[in-house]
Amino acid sequence: MYYIGIDLGGMSIKAGLVDEEGIIVRKATCPTLVERGARPIVDDMARLCLELIKDEGIGEDEVKAIGIGLPGIEDPVTGHVPFCTNLYWHEVPVREWMNETINKPIFIGNDATVAGLAESVAGVSKGKSSSVFVTLGTGVGGGIVLGGKVYSGFHGVGSEIGHMITVSGGDECTCGNRGCWERYASAGAIIRRGREAAQEHPESKIYKDVNGNLDDITAKIVIDAAKAGDETAVKVFDTYVFHLCEGLVSIINLIDPEVIVLGGGVSHAGQFLLDAINRTLPKMVFYKTMPYARIALATLGNDAGIIGAAMLGK
Amino acid sequence: MYYIGIDLGGMSIKAGLVDEEGIIVRKATCPTLVERGARPIVDDMARLCLELIKDEGIGEDEVKAIGIGLPGIEDPVTGHVPFCTNLYWHEVPVREWMNETINKPIFIGNDATVAGLAESVAGVSKGKSSSVFVTLGTGVGGGIVLGGKVYSGFHGVGSEIGHMITVSGGDECTCGNRGCWERYASAGAIIRRGREAAQEHPESKIYKDVNGNLDDITAKIVIDAAKAGDETAVKVFDTYVFHLCEGLVSIINLIDPEVIVLGGGVSHAGQFLLDAINRTLPKMVFYKTMPYARIALATLGNDAGIIGAAMLGK
Repeated sequence: MYYIGIDLGGMSIKAGLVDEEGIIVRKATCPTLVERGARPIVDDMARLCLELIKDEGIGEDEVKAIGIGLPGIEDPVTGHVPFCTNLYWHEVPVREWMNETINKPIFIGNDATVAGLAESVAGVSKGKSSSVFVTLGTGVGGGIVLGGKVYSGFHGVGSEIGHMITVSGGDECTCGNRGCWERYASAGAIIRRGREAAQEHPESKIYKDVNGNLDDITAKIVIDAAKAGDETAVKVFDTYVFHLCEGLVSIINLIDPEVIVLGGGVSHAGQFLLDAINRTLPKMVFYKTMPYARIALATLGNDAGIIGAAMLGK
Repeated sequence: MYYIGIDLGGMSIKAGLVDEEGIIVRKATCPTLVERGARPIVDDMARLCLELIKDEGIGEDEVKAIGIGLPGIEDPVTGHVPFCTNLYWHEVPVREWMNETINKPIFIGNDATVAGLAESVAGVSKGKSSSVFVTLGTGVGGGIVLGGKVYSGFHGVGSEIGHMITVSGGDECTCGNRGCWERYASAGAIIRRGREAAQEHPESKIYKDVNGNLDDITAKIVIDAAKAGDETAVKVFDTYVFHLCEGLVSIINLIDPEVIVLGGGVSHAGQFLLDAINRTLPKMVFYKTMPYARIALATLGNDAGIIGAAMLGK
């Protein structure tokens, strides 16, 4: 049997036909065009499903289910998607609309959650019974897998890892709260602190690398400068890692998964990031003589969204 | 069938014969006498089990299992208790020693965890599939129940809720870290802030209620003064509730249980505490239009330790 996974983002709709092992056998994509509203986007998602089936030359009966990963959640009571970050959706009946075009079971999951599921089915946490996936991107997203299944809580509002509070009364967050972990542990946080630091230190490599155009600073520029030993960048990076570890240790002390998988832009810092975490984290865990979660880097990259969405239906 | 539950604390060993419904049918107790070391304490636990069976006039074969709740954890690999707070234990083979006297399956759990299990079997969270129990005592302990089962993580080091970090780089904690939730949300935290506030405000009710003997300040004295409208006490209490809610919202955004149960000394503030939480928490949760965990007060009191330990074997 096959599964279809759809990765719905602000820029593009990516769909894939996925086999039992979590391998993508065919892909199809189209632009999201957020401004046209929810209905045509959902119709395009359904259309991509039919296209995949037709182009692969299989029967519709060979597809067991369709999974959709999106920047929001499903309300388990109404079955609607109450809202989606950046898509301006409000109470969208995704399942009903999809079923008007293609009559398959539809599963809906949060994008970070399905990426975590993908890693646990076909990526770095494959075969692990419990894992927490942390995307270090514009914000910080989370996906919890327990007993091989996506865990999103009783009301479906859990796994919002970026909105643990780690800095009491700290920076204002887009969620309306203060001090959320994502204000300190996201790529966005590195960029913000990198800009501040570069402004104060025009002698820094960060400043020079963007010719003083602070708006051009990216997380990669800051991290690369830290790798090169630039004092200002090292300070920004060390502070970042400290805040990152404060959240990681909270996840360990609370959920204690077998593995914590880091994805998103910052995870591309690779071994440099892992080394920094492994210098900081061991001192912070509660049970210092007991084993705890291994920290690993995501391996599926951009395909994780499609694979994980497909696996929702398995 | 019956179950035996043992609540091992620093002052006393409390044992109880518990039926299938989680009702205690007989109790037995003896002092812990920490200074005598682990072996005689474990022997006394086994002796209390035999005493309960004899005094109730039942056969040993009518007891299915023995559960022990203690201020520590079991190492799932060695089966030993690596250490216990305040008991000065080190790598104690509790199960083996117990079985030398009474040949029953032995289950070991953290004391806060088993209290949470008790509430979910016979207390306020009875019948709820997921709950997080939070003891607001000297420290902050936690018990997570998912799918009706105790959840303590992959390595057995999870559910240490008091050691989520909510105040980045904050007060030093006994665990060696800084800014752990329990430094701000425990009864101990109310006492510490109450003392500081009373020292600064000798006109306050807190100060007067202890005749200036600041060492006599308890959480109850501070909370009662807040209930009476004392300005200094209200400030301490409001700050406390804010910090408490920062952790509660982290639990909601991460684990999203059906109910969060508050136990321990501070929970005796009752409706006054719930009202304060319900004024603060709704503004802090991530999904403001979606339902989330009900906050409830524990109902089993001191019996929770025995009942929950017994239920480990069910």
